[in-house]
Amino acid sequence: AGLSGAALAQSVPCNIIDRPRWCDFTFGSVVNRSPVVVGISTGGAAPVLGQAIRRRIETMLPGTLAGWAERARSIRTEVMQRFPDFGARRAFWSRFADKALSGQSCVDDSGAHDRPEETSGRVTLVGAGPGDAELLTLKAVRALQSADVILFDALVSDDVLELARREARRMLVGKRGGRPSCRQEDINATMLKLARQGRHVVRLKAGDPMVFGRAGEEIDALHAAGIPVEVIPGITAASAAAARLQVSLTHRDHAQGVRFVTGHARNGELPDDLDWCGLADAKTTLMVYMGGRTANRLAGRLLAAGMPSHTPAATITAVSRPAEELRLMTLGSLAQHDFSGVDEPVLIGIGRVFAALTAANTDASRAASIA
Amino acid sequence: AGLSGAALAQSVPCNIIDRPRWCDFTFGSVVNRSPVVVGISTGGAAPVLGQAIRRRIETMLPGTLAGWAERARSIRTEVMQRFPDFGARRAFWSRFADKALSGQSCVDDSGAHDRPEETSGRVTLVGAGPGDAELLTLKAVRALQSADVILFDALVSDDVLELARREARRMLVGKRGGRPSCRQEDINATMLKLARQGRHVVRLKAGDPMVFGRAGEEIDALHAAGIPVEVIPGITAASAAAARLQVSLTHRDHAQGVRFVTGHARNGELPDDLDWCGLADAKTTLMVYMGGRTANRLAGRLLAAGMPSHTPAATITAVSRPAEELRLMTLGSLAQHDFSGVDEPVLIGIGRVFAALTAANTDASRAASIA
Repeated sequence: AGLSGAALAQSVPCNIIDRPRWCDFTFGSVVNRSPVVVGISTGGAAPVLGQAIRRRIETMLPGTLAGWAERARSIRTEVMQRFPDFGARRAFWSRFADKALSGQSCVDDSGAHDRPEETSGRVTLVGAGPGDAELLTLKAVRALQSADVILFDALVSDDVLELARREARRMLVGKRGGRPSCRQEDINATMLKLARQGRHVVRLKAGDPMVFGRAGEEIDALHAAGIPVEVIPGITAASAAAARLQVSLTHRDHAQGVRFVTGHARNGELPDDLDWCGLADAKTTLMVYMGGRTANRLAGRLLAAGMPSHTPAATITAVSRPAEELRLMTLGSLAQHDFSGVDEPVLIGIGRVFAALTAANTDASRAASIA
Repeated sequence: AGLSGAALAQSVPCNIIDRPRWCDFTFGSVVNRSPVVVGISTGGAAPVLGQAIRRRIETMLPGTLAGWAERARSIRTEVMQRFPDFGARRAFWSRFADKALSGQSCVDDSGAHDRPEETSGRVTLVGAGPGDAELLTLKAVRALQSADVILFDALVSDDVLELARREARRMLVGKRGGRPSCRQEDINATMLKLARQGRHVVRLKAGDPMVFGRAGEEIDALHAAGIPVEVIPGITAASAAAARLQVSLTHRDHAQGVRFVTGHARNGELPDDLDWCGLADAKTTLMVYMGGRTANRLAGRLLAAGMPSHTPAATITAVSRPAEELRLMTLGSLAQHDFSGVDEPVLIGIGRVFAALTAANTDASRAASIA
């Protein structure tokens, strides 16, 4: 016979496959972190799907959660007295839930839950990755789900923003090559103001904040103001592009290392003091971020520095996004390629490791993923 | 009055806070992807925690799931007839569940579910990140949860492996600097064999597979054998270290770019044909992977190439793992530092961007995270 939700929550069996013939209703799969119980029903439509969902939830809910929920029960009255104001009480429980879901153990730190620093603001710099929301880390998702305010760049995708807590305020703070946007000083000032108001501010940046993300200036400002900062790394565009191209950036037959530069310096132009001879080194894979607008000049400088025009190159536009485009070329053709009208971010890869790609037409599986 | 699980699954209200006084039992928070319904109860212990869990599950379950579950219901009898064998039927539904949870729309591709290629094997190269399981991407977790077999390197942490499907077979395939391990040829042969048996093989590599992960050789072998491959990027050690140090690797006041090299070439020694003058460029941040054993010699070569001995440097051992250690030094002291006895992977950063760290004692928030 099937189990009702009520009976089930008492006995908490863990692997009952839901069978429509056998019962009226049942949460066929259960995740038990008692007193936290999660029941999954597919109404009998798809038991294996129900089990797959159970596994995901099992993975997501740390084993330590049970202890936190017991703790919540035991301190409830005390919390009610300590925070008579609803907003303050809710803020306390939100922080409690963040910790409970973080995977850390619930130690009996009586009184610790009203330490003053817990009500002060903080900033988390979060790497949003190249666009596909599935490329966010679990830690980044956790930060988005505990944010009060999210300051995001124009390149952060809507899919990523959808992973955030619904109640979080979302503020676009611009930054797009060659367009008017918020000044860095204004972004810094906004972050400081919100954090000083006690908010958990998430500063959400495309890619990895520590690779051409201008995070340094924001961190400097936060440190100077004494605001607690945490940084959560993101998948940088070069990693995402390498995965899509199925090219190891450091394939040991072809490269000794990899180098990231930007095609877009402070003034929006190609940096003119780059060490072109060093960059023209055929044994180091070169990845040029934000390279579209200056690609022709960059290729020209590398050719002038002696890099062979047949050096393999690839351009990856909007990596991991719906508009993604991969193109294979050579350094010579890169110097001529017309990027006008390309509105999405362009990453350029140059080096011997991309040679495998120029033979992609002999390789069905890779060619298919690139076509 | 409270709702029983049965009543609730019919009416599916979405925001009832569970109140112990009001009811005997209720799944207080519900995620509705009807016919898939997920109920969350905290037994009244912590309603806000229940809501936080609901938000996480909401985030995890794509909106398109409802359509897939309806589809499952409509094709159940047909699938039963088409796959009379239990194992084959289960394999079909597992693939179905993977697709249903992938976020793609359920299009009515009648008959498509028995296409022969869907029963063939495939390999997913997955970046496990530097160690902390929270640094896996959502996509990597999804791959781990649909794996039949997982081939993992010694550096992949237990916490990461715990995110995998319980039923997946786990095989350690070695690879640790200076120790005996599986030969690359044997790893390739095992991958090919398992994929040809129809398995979904996850090749799990520490960090990002495309940055010093030797993924290139494995991809070459898979392409040559015509086995479908997908690559899921991971957080590379340099990104994780930059986040922990709170140092932008490309801070535009101090660096024009960043360069990754390995301290551990094919023979386990420092690569001897590196362009030392190029590497000694003070305007490019240098990150040396697997640098512990050869750090002294590397620093010596850079000094000999003219890099100033006061150039700031940092070593990050076991980044994001429990044994993590961050050390600040200079290129001069790096040349003398004793790494003997260090058994964990060491990443070395060299360049002006690390200068901010040497003043860390004036900076409480950063100093605390580094101490």
